[in-house]
Amino acid sequence: MSGVLRVRQDMEEWEILQAWKERVGQELDRVMAFWMEHSHDPEHGWAAPFGHPQQGLCPSRAPTLSSQPTLRFPSSPSHLRSWGLDTGLWGSAQAPHLLFMVHVPDRGFFTCLGRDGQVYDDLKYVWLQGRQVWMYCRLYRKVKRFRRPELLDSAKAGGDFLLRHARVTPPEKKCAFVLTRDGRPVKVQRTIFSECFYTMAMNELWRVTGDVRYQSEAVEMMEQLVHWVREDPSGLGQLRLPGAPSAEPMAVPMMLLCLVEQLGEADAELAARYAELGDWCAGRILQHVQRDGQAVLENVAEDGRELAGCLGRHQNPGHALEAGWFLLRHAIRKGDPDLRAHVIDKFMLLPFRSGWDPDHEGLFYFQDVDGLCPTQLEWAMKLWWPHSEAMIAFLMGYSESGDPALLRLFCQVAEYTFRQFRDPEYGEWFGYLNREGKVALTIKGGPFKGCFHVPRCLAMCEEMLDALLSRGDPADVPVRLGAE
Amino acid sequence: MSGVLRVRQDMEEWEILQAWKERVGQELDRVMAFWMEHSHDPEHGWAAPFGHPQQGLCPSRAPTLSSQPTLRFPSSPSHLRSWGLDTGLWGSAQAPHLLFMVHVPDRGFFTCLGRDGQVYDDLKYVWLQGRQVWMYCRLYRKVKRFRRPELLDSAKAGGDFLLRHARVTPPEKKCAFVLTRDGRPVKVQRTIFSECFYTMAMNELWRVTGDVRYQSEAVEMMEQLVHWVREDPSGLGQLRLPGAPSAEPMAVPMMLLCLVEQLGEADAELAARYAELGDWCAGRILQHVQRDGQAVLENVAEDGRELAGCLGRHQNPGHALEAGWFLLRHAIRKGDPDLRAHVIDKFMLLPFRSGWDPDHEGLFYFQDVDGLCPTQLEWAMKLWWPHSEAMIAFLMGYSESGDPALLRLFCQVAEYTFRQFRDPEYGEWFGYLNREGKVALTIKGGPFKGCFHVPRCLAMCEEMLDALLSRGDPADVPVRLGAE
Repeated sequence: MSGVLRVRQDMEEWEILQAWKERVGQELDRVMAFWMEHSHDPEHGWAAPFGHPQQGLCPSRAPTLSSQPTLRFPSSPSHLRSWGLDTGLWGSAQAPHLLFMVHVPDRGFFTCLGRDGQVYDDLKYVWLQGRQVWMYCRLYRKVKRFRRPELLDSAKAGGDFLLRHARVTPPEKKCAFVLTRDGRPVKVQRTIFSECFYTMAMNELWRVTGDVRYQSEAVEMMEQLVHWVREDPSGLGQLRLPGAPSAEPMAVPMMLLCLVEQLGEADAELAARYAELGDWCAGRILQHVQRDGQAVLENVAEDGRELAGCLGRHQNPGHALEAGWFLLRHAIRKGDPDLRAHVIDKFMLLPFRSGWDPDHEGLFYFQDVDGLCPTQLEWAMKLWWPHSEAMIAFLMGYSESGDPALLRLFCQVAEYTFRQFRDPEYGEWFGYLNREGKVALTIKGGPFKGCFHVPRCLAMCEEMLDALLSRGDPADVPVRLGAE
Repeated sequence: MSGVLRVRQDMEEWEILQAWKERVGQELDRVMAFWMEHSHDPEHGWAAPFGHPQQGLCPSRAPTLSSQPTLRFPSSPSHLRSWGLDTGLWGSAQAPHLLFMVHVPDRGFFTCLGRDGQVYDDLKYVWLQGRQVWMYCRLYRKVKRFRRPELLDSAKAGGDFLLRHARVTPPEKKCAFVLTRDGRPVKVQRTIFSECFYTMAMNELWRVTGDVRYQSEAVEMMEQLVHWVREDPSGLGQLRLPGAPSAEPMAVPMMLLCLVEQLGEADAELAARYAELGDWCAGRILQHVQRDGQAVLENVAEDGRELAGCLGRHQNPGHALEAGWFLLRHAIRKGDPDLRAHVIDKFMLLPFRSGWDPDHEGLFYFQDVDGLCPTQLEWAMKLWWPHSEAMIAFLMGYSESGDPALLRLFCQVAEYTFRQFRDPEYGEWFGYLNREGKVALTIKGGPFKGCFHVPRCLAMCEEMLDALLSRGDPADVPVRLGAE
């Protein structure tokens, strides 16, 4: 390629990066505003000094684990009402002092939010509580404009809600899957994921507060998770039935690898403690590449063999792409260029080629590796999170390899995603489109969609775009940008 | 209405009934041919006299419960191959006697069938095993042209497969949800439905074979079911969590009511034994009529109050219609015209009005009674079974009331159903359409779709249409047909 052509191509790429940086940054602000406006439970955690008759606010629920209560002064009656409180209960011209309330940091988040943010169910899903706490802390810690006390306060309130209520029968570590608004367990899953998001939340809370109780919670839960996965799963309550195959869902080593990175960040001791675990997780994920390297399968036998039937043929392209960027970060930490190339090929290009709908665009939710019809009713729907994961994966792949094909894939996915999932009217993204791209569910949050995939994607993309752009003017870094 | 007009209307109705009788009869034959050709496991249950190395055919799996083995002589090598056997294993010009095989009645059905009947998974779902046994026996017993030995043999083989394998830890009665091809348990549900379909299968097997062992299985399982539902559910393995509402899914009293009718048919002793239970079930189902009679809700508290949140607002129009015809038969048995009118109003007309898609026709799968967006991804899809249940409900409603509006609804649903779900090319019906009526899953059978709803609908409609037509020429029965 001639020098002139290269400079022109580099200039174009620089403009693309600049334009996307602005779009994702603005979108991150809009998305976070949606969650901060609509998802905070105004009631649990706020109590009048003299007690309050409503369940969850009485003095018997005073915090034991959290730090000192802080006094808050509502700025106006409408502010009070925005917390769901009837001002008549709290004060009058004769007794204005009743407007003081004690902040009890035990609150949690609503995640069942309609298109405009209306709460349509007050159940609190533990995955989503943990994820939202993590997201708030991460933004507070990493993105200057989000270093705002209201994020930190809400994260602490959510974290303390988890500390107090997530475990079903403390001191046992098994957490519920979903809790009532005031924290009573409704359902328990026989998997590790509630506990994984609990761990992420606690570790990130420790990073922003410095409160070591959060960190000891995180580390203890991590030990429990490793025990369940690698030594003895019986504490999860799973039945071992004679006909059940010993299948490994890719999510299990993926989540543990994610936690290895979470706990090991700037922490030499924990990074060393979990180094072997990280390699084990990466090896397990890589076992899901099957069919002579031509397919990523969601479930394989623990020894890496392909499983029979629908279970064995099941594919989830968005999940493969998410595993892709988890593995790519692992390859970066290890300084392993072969692994980097393998991951880009098998966990990014391959799932995109097979999983992208050639007729209507977008990533299929599920596929069957033999091209048979999946049995999941939603297999052809387009969900938000595979697309946000694909955006992260391709931009990270491009950042690490400089391959402009990966930047083009990022743009292709991001254009589709911004066009189809964004809601310019009320903010946040729709989660569930039909195959043709029409909104199938108008909810913005639900049992599996909270404040996590969208802002994580936007914040990570903004950070990566920033880093790419700050490498200097394109003419300065031709080898990095667009050289091939 | 003048006499001439009435006769003309009656003539039109008579022609409609006649035309539908022919359509459903022909369709029933086509549908049953599909299942008989593709769903019989050719391997398990067929063994050579000298044993066979394949799992499941060795002498150690010889039957203990079933009646004498019968000798079969395959009519040709291709016949043998149609059972999935390699003739080379079994015989040669030198040893043709090896072509004899022993029929071991322990076989079960494949239900994971692709569009053309291809088996795409060999797992055996217990609900669907029981339902197919029941369907074969019911047709054998009630429809003259299905009184064929191959139906009876297959039903017995399926029943013996259930007898031997369905229970997870015999003599405990809890059944698996899904088994491997050779009968090892893969998953267990903490509900009563596997056991309900087991009971239906055993009772119907007894009716066609006279073998009392089947009936004692049915009656013992029924006692267990009543104990779980009305006395102590702990044997089901459900956790009782402090935040879980004591919700009653409508399916539970529906299934028990179905069993009360099944066991009590032409059996004065059992009909008397379960009379009170039948009334209890009907009362419990009627509690699901909420909102001042304006809605049927799928889940209510055990005391009949509406539940909070999505769970409480959940509606399933097809299920309400199915409950409608269960209750209508209960009203007929009781000779209760008020209940009959109530049921037609609340469980037929009401769910149709709210559940029928005004834009694209067809019944929604799920709805939220407040018109909010359901959280189930498949809520707007059109599934086969709500439509087959609606056909039964409206034709039964018409048969019992003579109201031509119900005949019109039957025709509306049946026209949509035959147009959208039938597969003229390969037989059986598609199960899953998108909201617009396009086939979303091409499978003909799967974990929840087997040989049950479609042939039950067609056989019941054929029987009802026959009965309506045999009431004589329309001019003879003007009060019944079209009088209002």
